Amino acid sequence: MNDRFYLSLALNEAWKYQALTYPNPVVGCVITDKNGAVLALAAHKKAGLPHAELEAAKEALLKLNPLLKFPFEPNELHAFIGKHHNNLLKNSTFYVTLEPCSHQGLTPPCADLIVTLGAQRVVIGSLDKTKKAKGGAQILKKAGIKVEEGVLKEECDELLAPFLAWKNGSFSFFKLALRLDGTYDNGIITPHEARVFVHEMRNVCDLIVIGGETLRTDNPYLDARLSNGKSPDALICTKKTVPKNAHIFSVKNREVLVQNSLEFPKGYKNIMVEGGSNFLRAMSDKVDRFLIFHGCDFSLNGRKRIEVDLKLRLLYQGSVGGCSFGWYRKVI
Amino acid sequence: MNDRFYLSLALNEAWKYQALTYPNPVVGCVITDKNGAVLALAAHKKAGLPHAELEAAKEALLKLNPLLKFPFEPNELHAFIGKHHNNLLKNSTFYVTLEPCSHQGLTPPCADLIVTLGAQRVVIGSLDKTKKAKGGAQILKKAGIKVEEGVLKEECDELLAPFLAWKNGSFSFFKLALRLDGTYDNGIITPHEARVFVHEMRNVCDLIVIGGETLRTDNPYLDARLSNGKSPDALICTKKTVPKNAHIFSVKNREVLVQNSLEFPKGYKNIMVEGGSNFLRAMSDKVDRFLIFHGCDFSLNGRKRIEVDLKLRLLYQGSVGGCSFGWYRKVI
Repeated sequence: MNDRFYLSLALNEAWKYQALTYPNPVVGCVITDKNGAVLALAAHKKAGLPHAELEAAKEALLKLNPLLKFPFEPNELHAFIGKHHNNLLKNSTFYVTLEPCSHQGLTPPCADLIVTLGAQRVVIGSLDKTKKAKGGAQILKKAGIKVEEGVLKEECDELLAPFLAWKNGSFSFFKLALRLDGTYDNGIITPHEARVFVHEMRNVCDLIVIGGETLRTDNPYLDARLSNGKSPDALICTKKTVPKNAHIFSVKNREVLVQNSLEFPKGYKNIMVEGGSNFLRAMSDKVDRFLIFHGCDFSLNGRKRIEVDLKLRLLYQGSVGGCSFGWYRKVI
Repeated sequence: MNDRFYLSLALNEAWKYQALTYPNPVVGCVITDKNGAVLALAAHKKAGLPHAELEAAKEALLKLNPLLKFPFEPNELHAFIGKHHNNLLKNSTFYVTLEPCSHQGLTPPCADLIVTLGAQRVVIGSLDKTKKAKGGAQILKKAGIKVEEGVLKEECDELLAPFLAWKNGSFSFFKLALRLDGTYDNGIITPHEARVFVHEMRNVCDLIVIGGETLRTDNPYLDARLSNGKSPDALICTKKTVPKNAHIFSVKNREVLVQNSLEFPKGYKNIMVEGGSNFLRAMSDKVDRFLIFHGCDFSLNGRKRIEVDLKLRLLYQGSVGGCSFGWYRKVI
């Protein structure tokens, strides 16, 4: 199979963690050995966990030497692999959706790791143009590694877009959960796994935004209890006064903002918007992306329906707990 | 990566052609070389085209020797590969969602092909229990090939279910196309590619079923013009009389049946049901599977909505032309 095939595997793996890696870019990585056998398929899953290349290197080495006991902490993992790779990944090929980083952040540079491992070739989707991390390809080339750039570039750039938005200001997405028939209400629409997945997203958001209607109808906590996560600050966009005993105020360690405006307050970078028909209509020009879940039920009890004119383009579709979801962007 | 990984690649590839291979089973196949490098990912796409194993062998050989000029016709292809494989696939591994066939049908047995090619190992999802084709694994084992059976068995059995239903009587599915908001009408809901895809399905159906409401509202042709295919016979389930100038009667080389009953007439094997809310409610206990497309639009012009209580389970989700679709079965 060709470079596009392996990179598309990495791309699909990465999309599973879209919006979960804030403030880091979501990245996917495939490693094949010198003969072309796939050794690893991995992604960066969350800030504080290994970068995709490091995670993939660990997975590949574990496959080749199941007796290796890897440390959990990424810095220790990086050092451990540097010492114990035993040239097992010599002449391997790395397929990465984003140029390997060149900088010492929370972990040492991935480009250095790939050089240490003696890779033969690195196939890159998007180039990293951020000041801090760019230059990884240069490091690889200087070490004599063959580098292919821009494979599936458009697709990899789309994957990377939220990260660049965080860098340049903020990234916001509207999360919507509908039944198969398009209905919704404050009943349970998606399976538990899908709700945990959303709570994991809330955990890495710094702001969650709802309208007054959702507050009054659902009286939600908007916390991240299902993933044991921290609760983001909350913004209620409403013209009316908000009852002080609303559940949203009972969540600890979070600020609740109330305003009669749809503009996101400055300073927040990763913003999740939740709501129904009216709020979707109000926010459809203000958010960067749309994350739409479709449960597996048609129901006569579905009380509300979306009423808005909005054309979207499907960027990725996945499933969680038997529930399908899609990332979309607006077609202008 | 392990056997499940490669077989899941084959499984996903095969699902793309679900309901398009009638009367043949839809099958996916991955070939890796003796070192584990992926050489091919292929599926059986349509009756009259090569079986998955033959198609994958062709793809793998073409990768290893791009100068080979393969004949198109499957029997000639089988013979050609038998003569010109040059041991390039010696010690390869085949991952197939269904046990390779043992019988001389329109093409010679795939099990013989795999033996000829000198594969080392064959990983099988579902065993073939049909009288004609079973015994492929036995042929492989007798030739000294290592055979693993039952990997991802449940998933491969689900993929195979329509084929077994055809064998045992009939397979029917309800096709529904909705906007993202669940609305539908006789306007265009899905992109052109998705409609071509449905016309390809119609081309291999022997019966297409609608209710009187669809006939009166949409006055459809229910042909396969977008895929230049043949038009299946049509059944209109209605209590009322059908106007003789309805478009459905203008399509050549097809029979149109009209009946005041929801039972499928005997003799038809591959049955596609199309309709909206009322017909979905009427047919939800009678069809075997549900194929649901979701376009990418929310629209204030969407005139109709589904009103039915129905719990489904997602079996596979894919996309065509930027439009997502899912195969579902009813949860009882």
